Amino acid sequence: MSITMSRGQAYIHRLNDGRSVWLDGDRIHVTNHSAFQGTLQTIEGLFNLVDEPESRDTVAYWDENIGGYVHRAFQVPRCGEDLRQRAGAFRLWSERTYGVMSRLSDYARSRLTGWYATRDAMAIHDTYYADKISKYYEEAKRHDLFLTIVQRDPQMNRSLPIGEDEDAMLRIVRKNEEGVVIRGAKMIATAAPYADDILIYPVQRIPGDKPELAHMMIVPLNSPGLHVLCRESFAATDKQSSHPLSHQYDEMDAVLFFEDVLVPWERVLLHQNPEAVWQIRCNEASSSLAYHQSVIRLYSKLEFVTAITSSIAQEIGVDSFLNVQEQLGEMISQMQTIEGLIIAAEAKAKPDEYGNWLPEFKYIETARNLGNRYYPRSIEILKTIAAGGLIQIPSGMPGTNKPLEHMIHQYLGGVTISAQEKTRLFQLAWELTGSPLGARHDLYERFYAGDPLRNRANQYIQYDKQHLVDRVKPWLKA
Amino acid sequence: MSITMSRGQAYIHRLNDGRSVWLDGDRIHVTNHSAFQGTLQTIEGLFNLVDEPESRDTVAYWDENIGGYVHRAFQVPRCGEDLRQRAGAFRLWSERTYGVMSRLSDYARSRLTGWYATRDAMAIHDTYYADKISKYYEEAKRHDLFLTIVQRDPQMNRSLPIGEDEDAMLRIVRKNEEGVVIRGAKMIATAAPYADDILIYPVQRIPGDKPELAHMMIVPLNSPGLHVLCRESFAATDKQSSHPLSHQYDEMDAVLFFEDVLVPWERVLLHQNPEAVWQIRCNEASSSLAYHQSVIRLYSKLEFVTAITSSIAQEIGVDSFLNVQEQLGEMISQMQTIEGLIIAAEAKAKPDEYGNWLPEFKYIETARNLGNRYYPRSIEILKTIAAGGLIQIPSGMPGTNKPLEHMIHQYLGGVTISAQEKTRLFQLAWELTGSPLGARHDLYERFYAGDPLRNRANQYIQYDKQHLVDRVKPWLKA
Amino acid sequence: MSITMSRGQAYIHRLNDGRSVWLDGDRIHVTNHSAFQGTLQTIEGLFNLVDEPESRDTVAYWDENIGGYVHRAFQVPRCGEDLRQRAGAFRLWSERTYGVMSRLSDYARSRLTGWYATRDAMAIHDTYYADKISKYYEEAKRHDLFLTIVQRDPQMNRSLPIGEDEDAMLRIVRKNEEGVVIRGAKMIATAAPYADDILIYPVQRIPGDKPELAHMMIVPLNSPGLHVLCRESFAATDKQSSHPLSHQYDEMDAVLFFEDVLVPWERVLLHQNPEAVWQIRCNEASSSLAYHQSVIRLYSKLEFVTAITSSIAQEIGVDSFLNVQEQLGEMISQMQTIEGLIIAAEAKAKPDEYGNWLPEFKYIETARNLGNRYYPRSIEILKTIAAGGLIQIPSGMPGTNKPLEHMIHQYLGGVTISAQEKTRLFQLAWELTGSPLGARHDLYERFYAGDPLRNRANQYIQYDKQHLVDRVKPWLKA
Amino acid sequence: MSITMSRGQAYIHRLNDGRSVWLDGDRIHVTNHSAFQGTLQTIEGLFNLVDEPESRDTVAYWDENIGGYVHRAFQVPRCGEDLRQRAGAFRLWSERTYGVMSRLSDYARSRLTGWYATRDAMAIHDTYYADKISKYYEEAKRHDLFLTIVQRDPQMNRSLPIGEDEDAMLRIVRKNEEGVVIRGAKMIATAAPYADDILIYPVQRIPGDKPELAHMMIVPLNSPGLHVLCRESFAATDKQSSHPLSHQYDEMDAVLFFEDVLVPWERVLLHQNPEAVWQIRCNEASSSLAYHQSVIRLYSKLEFVTAITSSIAQEIGVDSFLNVQEQLGEMISQMQTIEGLIIAAEAKAKPDEYGNWLPEFKYIETARNLGNRYYPRSIEILKTIAAGGLIQIPSGMPGTNKPLEHMIHQYLGGVTISAQEKTRLFQLAWELTGSPLGARHDLYERFYAGDPLRNRANQYIQYDKQHLVDRVKPWLKA
Repeated sequence: MSITMSRGQAYIHRLNDGRSVWLDGDRIHVTNHSAFQGTLQTIEGLFNLVDEPESRDTVAYWDENIGGYVHRAFQVPRCGEDLRQRAGAFRLWSERTYGVMSRLSDYARSRLTGWYATRDAMAIHDTYYADKISKYYEEAKRHDLFLTIVQRDPQMNRSLPIGEDEDAMLRIVRKNEEGVVIRGAKMIATAAPYADDILIYPVQRIPGDKPELAHMMIVPLNSPGLHVLCRESFAATDKQSSHPLSHQYDEMDAVLFFEDVLVPWERVLLHQNPEAVWQIRCNEASSSLAYHQSVIRLYSKLEFVTAITSSIAQEIGVDSFLNVQEQLGEMISQMQTIEGLIIAAEAKAKPDEYGNWLPEFKYIETARNLGNRYYPRSIEILKTIAAGGLIQIPSGMPGTNKPLEHMIHQYLGGVTISAQEKTRLFQLAWELTGSPLGARHDLYERFYAGDPLRNRANQYIQYDKQHLVDRVKPWLKA
Repeated sequence: MSITMSRGQAYIHRLNDGRSVWLDGDRIHVTNHSAFQGTLQTIEGLFNLVDEPESRDTVAYWDENIGGYVHRAFQVPRCGEDLRQRAGAFRLWSERTYGVMSRLSDYARSRLTGWYATRDAMAIHDTYYADKISKYYEEAKRHDLFLTIVQRDPQMNRSLPIGEDEDAMLRIVRKNEEGVVIRGAKMIATAAPYADDILIYPVQRIPGDKPELAHMMIVPLNSPGLHVLCRESFAATDKQSSHPLSHQYDEMDAVLFFEDVLVPWERVLLHQNPEAVWQIRCNEASSSLAYHQSVIRLYSKLEFVTAITSSIAQEIGVDSFLNVQEQLGEMISQMQTIEGLIIAAEAKAKPDEYGNWLPEFKYIETARNLGNRYYPRSIEILKTIAAGGLIQIPSGMPGTNKPLEHMIHQYLGGVTISAQEKTRLFQLAWELTGSPLGARHDLYERFYAGDPLRNRANQYIQYDKQHLVDRVKPWLKA
Repeated sequence: MSITMSRGQAYIHRLNDGRSVWLDGDRIHVTNHSAFQGTLQTIEGLFNLVDEPESRDTVAYWDENIGGYVHRAFQVPRCGEDLRQRAGAFRLWSERTYGVMSRLSDYARSRLTGWYATRDAMAIHDTYYADKISKYYEEAKRHDLFLTIVQRDPQMNRSLPIGEDEDAMLRIVRKNEEGVVIRGAKMIATAAPYADDILIYPVQRIPGDKPELAHMMIVPLNSPGLHVLCRESFAATDKQSSHPLSHQYDEMDAVLFFEDVLVPWERVLLHQNPEAVWQIRCNEASSSLAYHQSVIRLYSKLEFVTAITSSIAQEIGVDSFLNVQEQLGEMISQMQTIEGLIIAAEAKAKPDEYGNWLPEFKYIETARNLGNRYYPRSIEILKTIAAGGLIQIPSGMPGTNKPLEHMIHQYLGGVTISAQEKTRLFQLAWELTGSPLGARHDLYERFYAGDPLRNRANQYIQYDKQHLVDRVKPWLKA
Repeated sequence: MSITMSRGQAYIHRLNDGRSVWLDGDRIHVTNHSAFQGTLQTIEGLFNLVDEPESRDTVAYWDENIGGYVHRAFQVPRCGEDLRQRAGAFRLWSERTYGVMSRLSDYARSRLTGWYATRDAMAIHDTYYADKISKYYEEAKRHDLFLTIVQRDPQMNRSLPIGEDEDAMLRIVRKNEEGVVIRGAKMIATAAPYADDILIYPVQRIPGDKPELAHMMIVPLNSPGLHVLCRESFAATDKQSSHPLSHQYDEMDAVLFFEDVLVPWERVLLHQNPEAVWQIRCNEASSSLAYHQSVIRLYSKLEFVTAITSSIAQEIGVDSFLNVQEQLGEMISQMQTIEGLIIAAEAKAKPDEYGNWLPEFKYIETARNLGNRYYPRSIEILKTIAAGGLIQIPSGMPGTNKPLEHMIHQYLGGVTISAQEKTRLFQLAWELTGSPLGARHDLYERFYAGDPLRNRANQYIQYDKQHLVDRVKPWLKA
C-alpha cells in the first residue's frame, strides 16, 4: 500500500489488475467506467473510516498480529463487548448507506472470520483446512481485502438431479501440482466486478457420488480465464441529482464464467469432500456472525423506508387518517421486531466450545426470515401512501422549468416543505419503489439468503421437536 | 385531414399545435422528441386499424351521420350484439398492446359516449348540457379525436376540507362572453401531452357552498396558458432492444397547470353546479361503458404476465414443483375470474330507460376492484418464480459479448430455448417487475380508479342492503 | 313407497334398515336419536318440496320413464334451459338452508347423472359399466334415493407410497359369484348415517401395479359388515332456541369401517381398473354438474354471512366507519365474484359429444377454488366487525332473566332492534363463528373439494399452456 | 383466612358472598355450579403454588409489610433481577395452564402494582389518589385478592359521540357521604363471576365536558345492585374426557349491570376527572408490567398450538412435505419472535423516575400487537395441516365402541401412537380450533387489548417521528 494513498484509494488502485469484466457488450475497466464511479466512491469513503479518528474506534480494532487497525468484521468475538463492538461497526456502515448496500465485504469477512474461528472443528474432515484458512484470514486482514461470496448455479434445468447436467454446476476438470482447474458458471456474484477475492462453495448438499462438485475455494477476480458478466447498470449516471441512491449505491450483480481457471492449492480450502463442504455451509459461527451484519443492515433500511413514508404522509397531509396511521404503525412494528430480535440475539449470546462469543442464531435467523416479507411489505405501504404522487414526479427539478416556476411552487409544495424539497422527497421514494435499483432491492431482500420457503422450512427442521412433543404427551394419556 | 395521410398520421400531425409540454426542464415538441417516438408510433398503428380491411369491422363501425368508419368506443350500444362488438374492439387494441396501454382514448371516448347516451337525464340540472355534449360527441367522432380525462387535484394538504386552500382545486376565476377562465392545477393527466382534448371534472363531491369548484369542461391541449409538465420518461430510448415494452408503450403522465386558461362556453358542459357534476361523476352508463374497456384490458395484461411467468417456469425447469404450480394456478384463477366477470356483465346486460344496452355494472365494478389486488399479486408471483434470475440478466445481448459467446450459450440457455431467447424472456419479465415502466404499471393498476379502500367501501354503500336484512330477519323472531 | 307417506317420510322410514351406526360409544337408531332429529326433519321438508305445488316445478321435473316427478339433480341437461332449471332447483334448496347444508344428496345425484350421461365414453375401459350405471341411475331416480360419496382414506402415514400399507386403503380381499368382498376404512363420509347408498371410489390415482385398490362401487348403508362411526354431534339438542342452525343443519360426518363387506356385482361399477377409475375421477360432466350445485350453495352461504355481518354492523352503529364499509364491501365483492362465475359458466355452457349441455367447468372450478379462501375470510370479517360482542352474548334469552329484564332491554338493544332480537342476531353469528357447527363449516369449505393447494395447482396443470407460450414467443425473436 | 384452609380454598370460600351471578336464565352460586367447577379448581391449584415449597420461590416473594409470601405480580421491580423474577412467576402459571388462561388476576394485579408504584405522578391531578391506591394495594396483597378489570361499554350505537346516549356509559348518578352511586353497564368483564374485586375505568378518552363519565373505581363483586350476566358456559361439563381444556380452563366472560351501586369513597380512586383518568389509561408502568404478563402467556399458548400441530404432522406422516414444514417453520418463527421481544424488553429495562425497573414497553407493545395476528394464524396453520381429520374425530373414545375396537385400532392409529392417543391428540386440536372455547380464544387474542387497528395506529402516533424526519432531511437539500 502506498504511503500516500488512503485505505480506500489503495482498494480502488488494486482493481486495475487486468480482470475481465463485461458490461453492455464491452470489456470495461471498472475504475474508470461511469457505471461504477458512484459506488466505488462510496466504498472508498467507507474504507477510509477505519483510519479517521472519529470513526476508527467504532469500525476498527487494533490487531496485534498486523500491528494496525483492522475492520471489526475480522474481529473474533470472545466476549459480549466484542460482539457489541462488531455490531457497532456494522451499524455505522449501514447508517451511512441507509441500509441500501449489503455486500460491502463485511458479510463475507464475517463468514470468513466464523470459519477461521472454528477451523479446528474441520480437522476430522480435512487436515490442511485449518492451516489454509488461517493463512488466508491473516492475509485478508492484513491487506484489507474486499471479499465477496458466490454459491448458486445458473438457472438451467432445476428439475434435474444434482450433477446430471455436467454444465449446470461448477466442477473440477483436472488437477496438477499447482492446483485445480475449474470449469462452469456461477451466479449471483454481487460485487464481484470490484472485489479482491471471491469465496466459492455450493449452496446445495452435494451427494457422495459427485465429489467433483464439492469444493470450497477462494479465487482472485483477476484469475486468467475468469470472466465477469454484469447485468445492466442501475447507476443512473446521467440523472445523479434526481437518482442519488442509484448513483451512489448500485451494487453490481454478475454471472461468473470459469473458462478452465487454475486455483492454486493454498486457495483450495476443501475439494472432493461433500461432507466437509456441507459442514462449511451449515457452520453456525460463520452464519451467526455474517447474518448478524445482515439484520443490522436490514434495520437501517426499514428505518429509511419508514422515514420516507412518514415524511410523505406528513407532507401530503394524510398522517391524521386512521388507516394511514395503522400502516405507518405496521412499519414501526416491523422495525421494533427486528431491533428486538437483534437485542435478543446479543443478550443471549454465549461462547461456543472454542470460546467464540456468538450471537444466538435462532433470533438472527428469525429476523432474517421475517425480512424477506417485511421489506416488500414496507415498500408496498410506501406505495399505498404515496400513491398517485409517485407517478407524477415532475421531470426536471423545480428551478429548471423557468416559465412554470411560480406554478410549481404554488401547487407542488408540501405541508411544511417547498416544491423543490417535496420533489426530492418523492424522487427518493421513487428510487426505492420505481427505479431499477429499487426493484433489485425488493428482489434482493426476498432472495439473498436463498429460497424463502426452504429457509422457513429449515426453522422447523432444525428445531428441537422433542420439547414440543413433551408439551403434548401428558394430554394423550387416558 | 389530408387525403394522403393515414388516420394515425393525421393524429400525429394534429399534435404540432403549439402546445406547451415540458420534459426534463425543457419545452419540447412531442412529435420529434425521442421519449414519445415509440408510443406515438404504437398509437398511430392502432388508429390505422380502423381503416385496414382485416381489422376494420372489429374496431370500427359505419356511422351514418359521419358517413365513415368510427372507432367502436363511440358506438352507443342498443343491443347485446352492439355490446359484444364494442368488447371486440377493446380486445383487439388490448391484445395488440398486451394490456400494457390503458389510456388509448378508448376509455375517455367510452365515458363521453355514456354521458352522451344519457344526456336527457341531465335536463333537470342544466338545460344546455344535452346540446353541448351532443355537438362535442359528433365532433370528436368525426375528427377521430384522442381524448383523455383528468380528475384529481395536486397532493397538497389532504387533511384540509374541500376548498379551504383555494389553490388546491382547479377553479373558475372569472367569466366573460366567450367563456370561463380557470386557474389551478390537475393531476394525473395521463396521455395529456399527446391528446387532442382533455375532459375535466372533479373526483370528489363538491359541497353546495363551493360552486366555483363544480365544473365539467373539455379543454384542447393547445389552449393558451395550459402547461403540461411531464414526469421522467420511461421510454428507454437508448435501450430499445432490451426494453421493448418501455420503448413502445410508455404512456406519459403529467401535471397540468392552468394559468388563467379561457374555456369557451360550448366546452363548458357544466359550471357552478355541484349536484350536476356529482351526477356526471356517478353516471352509470358512462362508468359501465368505460370500465368495460378497463377490465377487458386488465385481462390481456394478466394473461401476458401469466404467459411470461409460465414460460420462465418451464425454461428454468421449475414448473414441475407443486408450490410453483400452485402459484401459476393462482394466476390462471385470476384470469378466469376476470374473464368470468366480463362474461357475466355482458350476459346480464340490459337496456336503461333510454334504450342503451349497458353491461351489468356490478360485475365490472367487482372485476375492477379485484384488479387492484390481482395485478400486484401477479407481479409478485412472477418475481417469486423468476427469483434471482431477474437480477442477473446479462447486459448486452448474447451476440455482443463476443469472447464470452460460447459460455453464454452453454450456461445461460433455457430448457428448450437458446441463451438469446432466454435473455429476451427475462428482459420482458424485468420490464414488468423491475423497470420504471413496470413500477408505474403496478402503481397504475392499484390506483387508476381512485383510492382502492374507498372503492371497496362503495361496493357496500351502494348495495341493496334491504335484501340482506330480509335474509336475517326471520331468525330474529322468538 | 306407501301411498300414505310423503316423499320425505318415506325416506325417513327407509332408514330403519338395521344399519350399524355408532355415536358416543353406542350403536344407535338415527331416526329416534335426538342428535339427528333436526337434520332429518330438514331433509324431510326438502324432499317434500318435490310434491308441493308451489315448489314442484322449481325443484323437480316430470320423468317419462318413471312416470312421476323427480328431483332435478337427476335431470340430464340437453339445452341451456335445462341447465338453468337444474340451477333453480339447487338454489331453492340452498336458500331454504342458507347454504349451511351441502350434502343433501344433490351433489352426489349430480355426479351420478354426469357419469350416466357420459357412460358411453367408458366403453373402452369396461364393457359392463354403461349398463350397470344406467340401471342404478334409473333405480336411484325411481326411489328418490339419498346418495352420498366417500373418497378419502384414513389419515394414517401419508408419507408412504400408495398401497405400501395394505390397511391404508379400501381393497378387494376376495371375489365370488355374488360379488366382491371389501375390507378397510374410508373417511370423510358426510351424511352416511342417513343416506340410502354411498358411492365409493379413490381420490388418488392408483398405480397400475395395485389394481386391487382401483374400484368404483355403490354400497347400501345397511350392508352387513359396514359400520358407521360418527363424530361428536353438533346438534345442540338441549339448546335449540339459542343454536337454531346447529339444531336444524348438522350434517354428520363419519368414518366407515368395511369388515369384509360383500358388494354384489351389479353395484361394482368398476374393479381392478386403475385407468377407468381415474377417468371416473376426472370426468368433466360429472364434476361440472356436481360442482355447479356446490358453487350455487356457496353463494347462498356467503350471502347469509354477509347478511348477518351487515346487520350487526348496523345494529351496533359501526356501518358508517370507512374501514368497516371496506370490509363489508369485500364481502359484497366475494358474492358478486361467485355469482358472476356462475353466470359465466351457464352463459358459456355448450354440448359435449353426447349432447349433454354442460356448464363451462373452468368458471365453476375457479369459483370452487376461490371458495376455500372466501368463506374463511368472510367469517374472519364477521369476527372483526362483531368483535368483543361475540364473546359476550348473554346466556339465557332476555325474558328468562326476570330481575335483570329492564337492564337487559336498556343496555343490550341495538340501534333499531330490541335486546331480544339483537341477542338472536349475535347467537346466529356465534353459531357460524364460535360453535362446533361453525368450526366444521370453516373446515368443510376449506377442504371439501380436496387439498386446496393441489386444486389450485391443477388449474395450471390442465390449462392450455400453448396459448400462453404463443403470447410470449414473438418477443423472443431478435 | 382460616388456618385450616389452603390459600386456594380460602379464595373459593370468599366467593360465597351473596353476589348476583346469572347463567342460562338462573341466578346461581358459582362455587357449586358445574360450569365453574373445573376452572375454580384450576385457580385453586395455582393459588396454592404460593405456599408449596417447590414453587414458592418462583411464584412468590416474602413481603416484609405483610410478613408473608405474596404472588410476584404484586412485586414492585426495582432491579433487573426483580423483573426476571416477575417473569418467572408469570411463566410458571402460563406453562401450567398452557397459556389458555389469561385472566388469572396476575394481569390486573400487575396493573394495580404499576399504578401504585407511580402514584406520586398523579398528585397534580388528585391529592387523595396516592393514599387510596396505597391502601388498596396493601389490602389486595394481604388478602391475596383475585382482581379483574373491565373497561368497555356495551355495543350500543358506536357512531354516537361519547356521552350522547346517557345509557351508553357507566356514570355517577349521585354522591353522598359514603360514596358515589353508579348506574349503567360494562363489558367484557372476564372472570368477574369469581373475582373478589373489579377495577373499572373507561377505555376511551372522556371529553372535558362529560366529567360524570370519568372515574376510576374498585368494586367488590358482591356489591348490592351489581349483577353479573354470564355468557353460555363453554365448560363442557358432560364431556370432560374429550374436552379437557374446556373443562379446566373456561374463563367466564360477563356483562355487568350496575343498578345504582354504591361505591364507598375509599374505593373511588378518581372521579369527575377526565384528564386524570386518561393518565391512568396511558400509564406506562402499569401497561408495561401488565402486558409483560400477557406476552409471556402468549408465548406459552403459541408453543402449545405449535406442539399440537407438530405432533399431528408427525402422526399423520405429513411432516416430511416441504409445504407442511414451511408452515411449521412459520409457527416456530412466531414463537421465536415473541420470545425475542420479551428478551429485548427485559434486556433494555431501565428505572423510571421513581426507581421502578420497567421492561422496555415498545418491545412488549410490539409483541402484543403481533399477537393479534399470530394466534389466529397459528390456529389457521393447525387447521390446514390437520385438515379433514379434525371433522372426523370418532365420538366415544376408543374403548367404548366395543365391537368396532379392532378396526379402530387398525385404521385410526398414528405413525407412532395408538388410536386412543391419536384421538386424544385430535380432540386437543379440536378444542382449540372447533370448540366454543377455542373460538373464544381466537376472538380473545384478536381483541383483548382493544381494537387492533387503533393499537397499531398508536405505535405510529407515539413514535418519536423527529428521528425519522432527521434521516430524510439531508436528502431534501439541493
